[in-house]
Amino acid sequence: MRGIAPLAISMGDPAGIGPEVIAKAWERRDSEKLPCFFAVGDVRAVSAVWNGPVERIDEPRDAADVFRRALPVVSVVDDEAIVPGRPDIGGARCALQSLELAAGLARSDAVSGLVTAPVSKADLYRVGFDYPGQTEFVAERCGVARENAVMMLAGPTLRVVPVTIHEPLAAVPRVLTVELLLARARVTARGLIRDFGIGAPRLALAGLNPHAGEGGAIGREEIDVMIPAVELLRAEGIDIVGPLAADTMFHPRARARYDAALCAYHDQALIPIKTLHFDDGVNITLGLPIVRTSPDHGTAFDIAGRDMAEPGAMIAAIRMAGEAAARRAAA
Amino acid sequence: MRGIAPLAISMGDPAGIGPEVIAKAWERRDSEKLPCFFAVGDVRAVSAVWNGPVERIDEPRDAADVFRRALPVVSVVDDEAIVPGRPDIGGARCALQSLELAAGLARSDAVSGLVTAPVSKADLYRVGFDYPGQTEFVAERCGVARENAVMMLAGPTLRVVPVTIHEPLAAVPRVLTVELLLARARVTARGLIRDFGIGAPRLALAGLNPHAGEGGAIGREEIDVMIPAVELLRAEGIDIVGPLAADTMFHPRARARYDAALCAYHDQALIPIKTLHFDDGVNITLGLPIVRTSPDHGTAFDIAGRDMAEPGAMIAAIRMAGEAAARRAAA
Repeated sequence: MRGIAPLAISMGDPAGIGPEVIAKAWERRDSEKLPCFFAVGDVRAVSAVWNGPVERIDEPRDAADVFRRALPVVSVVDDEAIVPGRPDIGGARCALQSLELAAGLARSDAVSGLVTAPVSKADLYRVGFDYPGQTEFVAERCGVARENAVMMLAGPTLRVVPVTIHEPLAAVPRVLTVELLLARARVTARGLIRDFGIGAPRLALAGLNPHAGEGGAIGREEIDVMIPAVELLRAEGIDIVGPLAADTMFHPRARARYDAALCAYHDQALIPIKTLHFDDGVNITLGLPIVRTSPDHGTAFDIAGRDMAEPGAMIAAIRMAGEAAARRAAA
Repeated sequence: MRGIAPLAISMGDPAGIGPEVIAKAWERRDSEKLPCFFAVGDVRAVSAVWNGPVERIDEPRDAADVFRRALPVVSVVDDEAIVPGRPDIGGARCALQSLELAAGLARSDAVSGLVTAPVSKADLYRVGFDYPGQTEFVAERCGVARENAVMMLAGPTLRVVPVTIHEPLAAVPRVLTVELLLARARVTARGLIRDFGIGAPRLALAGLNPHAGEGGAIGREEIDVMIPAVELLRAEGIDIVGPLAADTMFHPRARARYDAALCAYHDQALIPIKTLHFDDGVNITLGLPIVRTSPDHGTAFDIAGRDMAEPGAMIAAIRMAGEAAARRAAA
């Protein structure tokens, strides 16, 4: 990672476990061989939950020096009290400023990628945030249409992309179109090349219906939508198989056959990744001009400030962002 | 298991891997501490794929003696050639007779339970079989309405019950009713007591929609159907929680909180069980007067007769049937 600019980590909600897992990740920077990073947020949110050394920096370029001896922090606000486990308006404002600043920095050459700690969407909505999530916010700040920013969840043995995300299950058959499948598959294939260094990525598409519809006997979406999409993608040179029976796609031998599974809906993607990689799953956004990852967990207000938070997912998110940034820098 | 009557194992399609995995399970009867069983089907289907000792028996009561030195087989037909890997009408007829006879024997006191090896439904349909699967056939032979025969898939660390099974995904929200949830949950709770010896079974219901609908923001089935069903079940004294977000129900710590997960649809149940227990998952039918299990795999015609089939799931199905039979005998 030598020579690569540092990663910026937005602290997320200061009353959540974000500050703690960032600090714990810094503690393990050597044993985990993490690339240089700095946090963006309120210094006191870190000090409230951690006794280690914190040092304010003014510029991303100062991070490299400081990183050896202290957690470098670009500070955003200092004017309101932070109580771990007690989210409030001040904390939400801080989280939003932290995200805004970190995303802005990540668009400059002084930063090689963005890692976002968890926010409380309900609280963010109270301070004027009006995006479905951080991903869409970051996409907009990058000038990318939100439908072209693709959420991938990646663990050590599985990568999944939900083609539809927060749709009621009953709406999924209607939302699932050839166009949507094409868009998601193209961004996924490019992302595997660009951010994961996979020269010839292999995609597998999960069928919508049980047994992938059994040739139309249990639903027709495979025939009417999925097979046509797969044929168009193959004609473009994208290596994609399916639609496959989803239930037999995620055991170890099956997972070895593809680099990413495209799943029709939220739970079809998130059940296998969280079953296998609940503690080290990373959310990576494909299709952006910047590298952006996030640990796949929430604010966990219930355990914040009690020294119980495990930094495994944050460490995995930092490592994945560092690797993707290094690949982009070398490309 | 001493004193318990033997298990009957229908051989399934004789051209599939059924005969081979039954024979291999018999080979490991001592190391795996399996209860006494006999196969029902064509002796030559076993001899075609296995060099070990096979001995015909006329009555289930003869199995105990023979089991020590040879695989006991109650024979059904001998008049057509069997070619492993080549399913045909004769084989389908043999599979159906094997299932019919084994189910009949299982209803007598001379047999303690039924294990069914995999059949080819497409081939069975050609010889007049008109059930969705073996489960419904066995239920009818037991005088149980098919909606009261509940499929559970069980592995060493997870048990799941799909509330709807072979429905197109688009039909699931319509098929999922309070009545259906009540019926499945009641049979599941009784089955956990009766066949698994769990005194106070804990059920968890998976929400239909992402994040279990987020209070109605992503679908209303949780509010309109699932919560009312859970309340009625709790009023009956059934320990059931949910609807829960399905994606966070299947990691190890979450699985420790319940004895069986009720899932809204096929893949929601089968993705986690096959991700975790692809090679040792057992299909057990709850709600029948007899014990019935089945290895959770298909005929695998592509590897039949090549000494490649792994008997792990068959061994697990035999063990589970034996344990359930012992519990029923002791009850």
